[in-house]
Amino acid sequence: MNAKKAADSLIIMTELVLPNDTNIFGNLMGGRLMYWMDIAAALAGSKHCSAPVVTASVDNISFTNPIGLGNVVHIEAKLTRTFNTSMEIHLNVWGEDIIQQYRYKSNEAYYTFVSVDPNGRPRKVPPLEPETEEEQNFYESALRRRQLRLILGGKMKIEEASELKALFLKE
Amino acid sequence: MNAKKAADSLIIMTELVLPNDTNIFGNLMGGRLMYWMDIAAALAGSKHCSAPVVTASVDNISFTNPIGLGNVVHIEAKLTRTFNTSMEIHLNVWGEDIIQQYRYKSNEAYYTFVSVDPNGRPRKVPPLEPETEEEQNFYESALRRRQLRLILGGKMKIEEASELKALFLKE
Amino acid sequence: MNAKKAADSLIIMTELVLPNDTNIFGNLMGGRLMYWMDIAAALAGSKHCSAPVVTASVDNISFTNPIGLGNVVHIEAKLTRTFNTSMEIHLNVWGEDIIQQYRYKSNEAYYTFVSVDPNGRPRKVPPLEPETEEEQNFYESALRRRQLRLILGGKMKIEEASELKALFLKE
Amino acid sequence: MNAKKAADSLIIMTELVLPNDTNIFGNLMGGRLMYWMDIAAALAGSKHCSAPVVTASVDNISFTNPIGLGNVVHIEAKLTRTFNTSMEIHLNVWGEDIIQQYRYKSNEAYYTFVSVDPNGRPRKVPPLEPETEEEQNFYESALRRRQLRLILGGKMKIEEASELKALFLKE
Amino acid sequence: MNAKKAADSLIIMTELVLPNDTNIFGNLMGGRLMYWMDIAAALAGSKHCSAPVVTASVDNISFTNPIGLGNVVHIEAKLTRTFNTSMEIHLNVWGEDIIQQYRYKSNEAYYTFVSVDPNGRPRKVPPLEPETEEEQNFYESALRRRQLRLILGGKMKIEEASELKALFLKE
Amino acid sequence: MNAKKAADSLIIMTELVLPNDTNIFGNLMGGRLMYWMDIAAALAGSKHCSAPVVTASVDNISFTNPIGLGNVVHIEAKLTRTFNTSMEIHLNVWGEDIIQQYRYKSNEAYYTFVSVDPNGRPRKVPPLEPETEEEQNFYESALRRRQLRLILGGKMKIEEASELKALFLKE
Repeated sequence: MNAKKAADSLIIMTELVLPNDTNIFGNLMGGRLMYWMDIAAALAGSKHCSAPVVTASVDNISFTNPIGLGNVVHIEAKLTRTFNTSMEIHLNVWGEDIIQQYRYKSNEAYYTFVSVDPNGRPRKVPPLEPETEEEQNFYESALRRRQLRLILGGKMKIEEASELKALFLKE
Repeated sequence: MNAKKAADSLIIMTELVLPNDTNIFGNLMGGRLMYWMDIAAALAGSKHCSAPVVTASVDNISFTNPIGLGNVVHIEAKLTRTFNTSMEIHLNVWGEDIIQQYRYKSNEAYYTFVSVDPNGRPRKVPPLEPETEEEQNFYESALRRRQLRLILGGKMKIEEASELKALFLKE
Repeated sequence: MNAKKAADSLIIMTELVLPNDTNIFGNLMGGRLMYWMDIAAALAGSKHCSAPVVTASVDNISFTNPIGLGNVVHIEAKLTRTFNTSMEIHLNVWGEDIIQQYRYKSNEAYYTFVSVDPNGRPRKVPPLEPETEEEQNFYESALRRRQLRLILGGKMKIEEASELKALFLKE
Repeated sequence: MNAKKAADSLIIMTELVLPNDTNIFGNLMGGRLMYWMDIAAALAGSKHCSAPVVTASVDNISFTNPIGLGNVVHIEAKLTRTFNTSMEIHLNVWGEDIIQQYRYKSNEAYYTFVSVDPNGRPRKVPPLEPETEEEQNFYESALRRRQLRLILGGKMKIEEASELKALFLKE
Repeated sequence: MNAKKAADSLIIMTELVLPNDTNIFGNLMGGRLMYWMDIAAALAGSKHCSAPVVTASVDNISFTNPIGLGNVVHIEAKLTRTFNTSMEIHLNVWGEDIIQQYRYKSNEAYYTFVSVDPNGRPRKVPPLEPETEEEQNFYESALRRRQLRLILGGKMKIEEASELKALFLKE
Repeated sequence: MNAKKAADSLIIMTELVLPNDTNIFGNLMGGRLMYWMDIAAALAGSKHCSAPVVTASVDNISFTNPIGLGNVVHIEAKLTRTFNTSMEIHLNVWGEDIIQQYRYKSNEAYYTFVSVDPNGRPRKVPPLEPETEEEQNFYESALRRRQLRLILGGKMKIEEASELKALFLKE
């Protein structure tokens, strides 16, 4: 299995906020945004694996600014690191008021997907090759996030999370 | 502001998985589920505050079992603890194959919402009164989750997270 | 085929009224509500039969109060009585203005569903066991409603509707 | 207020059954059909009144034949009679397998709508002028259906329903 | 293969403009209208062929008047001429403000569909028999439109378009 | 009004084909695609004008290859030229089977939008500055397309279309 470049997995998605996507303040509902993010991340994952993928987990997401009705949602999804049968995907989301020409951050998130074969069983994921410095940073920090994810999901004990511990001691 | 019971905020939501909610395996897409969870949690929060609420953050979610086309999604949302202008809401989600009479866990999650006044500014949230032992446990552990959330969101330094540290040392 | 309790068929559904569900007064359209009621009733029926069910008929429905945009719709569906291959399901629907903490009746309805086998042919439905007094009342009055339904559907002559006649004579 | 012809209120609606409209047998869900019927009837009512209308009630509906995925739904809605601030609308619904060139009855129904002024209060409806023999028959039988509707809605006592009684005695 | 009458392919579609169909001026989005037109035209084509059809092309469409939220969209689709495995369908679209009793033209369009067999391969289309003078005019002018379509699609050279040339010289 | 670069108007949209977007062959319906294209083009136009825009017309579109369920739709929209209060937008659309790593052309199209002020009246559009050779070619050929559009829309006589005539004579 040959490594593939991180940049090759990039998915750019643009969505317009319509009335049914909004709450009573006329702002995009968080759940609707997570729906679009899930699709963008799934496409990035599928592109890397040339195989169907399913959502395994979503890391903590904070929503910074509301995105108003008629504004535009920009989503960029790109792989940060692959593990055995899973991969972490970084999402960067911002809103844009096209009329006022004003762009603002909405959130950043990490989704984890598992690659599956036609019977729905996990299958090996090709390795990822980070190139830029930013991709390299995402690649390295992915281990810490994965340990936190496993601890929060009850699949790893805190004392085994060496990467995470180092972080805690350092800061 | 009088305290309100945790039990009074309970929202029970039932949804049927339709074709457009599914991926190519005929299983519910994770993003679609997070959309329903966001609405259930928003209703629970709004019920407690008698005010509109907006999604502030979502904690790490792991998806355990796929939920198939034609299956039923059960979502229960209930407040665990309130803070100054925000509140944490616990969600319990399971799937059901009604024909085979088989229920299975999908995921558990914590969403955080902020209560807002008619101008969209944060407003005080009435305190929460946990009653059962389970509600009491959720109430206490909410501090730790909040610290982790603030750290992950870059709003708190690790050395200030006393509750979380205690947990790390203990385990 | 063992009898099953009425209470075991209960389905609780909660929906938020979004812009696209409303007419030009910003109130929930009747047809959208009947769509949700149909799904809630189908799930209750399916739960009782452990089999797929299809809508056979809907009894007269009156809509009492409009349900506004951003309000919540509560639907409870429960079996009242089974017949050979069909079952009657009672629906209770109310709206809620969560901000004003005000609940109001929307309507009550009876949907009839037929249980079907994998080839889409009617199949026997397990008998229903009413327990509470209210369930007992629904069970008994179901015969009269069924006769009226059959007459209105042109499948029974008025003179054969003994239960219904008794009602007419009594009142 | 001048009378208007029944024929002038006719609305013809054609819909294609898409995947999300269907149950697990690939047949149109009853609730989705009632949603379309509600819109067709509302348009017929609005056309007659030149005013917004809201659904007041729906009479007993029986579903005769399932309508499959990819089939076409034909709905015709036309006023049968007006009362003070309300009007009865007759709906005729049939399915069509366009490929097999086969048309089949789905159901017939009566929806009642109330005309409302800009403040949402009932307003007078122009009288209806039936022309054909069929329209004349619908016009006359509307009184009986209205009495049954009022009795079923708990707004009329059986002994006051003279039109309905005549029917019971006759048959 | 027997000829079929143009009139037999007529599809009448009526749609209500809902919030999610509109732009920030509360007017129907052009793309949503083209979606409905595509379905109406596909049904007209399928009706003529008794076979599935797929969209091959759409001719130039100009949108004349905006159609507002709560207004009604009327679409009429009818075949104008068939070619070997394809057919041209004429669409006439107008809006209606039912409350103000005001009808206005939206657009006229020509869609071209190809009839396909169960393997998705083009199949022969039954010939069309125009009857009225208007149908006859549509039938004749269809050749010119087809030449323009083929030229614009890069499938015909200008010098071969004899029908179109005659038009250019005449005018 | 300062000129703006063509490249600055670029909108990249990525959509996943879901069940409800497909016909009975499981291929994306043409109308659904035109809906997405309309939104992408509107966003490109709005971005250039910093103002709302409305669809004025759509040029002839040919659909080359079907896009299957689960495949990805890529849409790129970019301005080619502005006129007084309108602008032409070029769309390039291709499908992708992500699993098979296969990309294929779907269609190319030109949409025309009008910029409108808050009262919905046409307003001046900033001039466009093409930079690359391709942008320059689009810019120049836009005049011919506009003449053809005006002729087809009945707003220009053939003898006045000097640009178009030159083309006819040349080829």
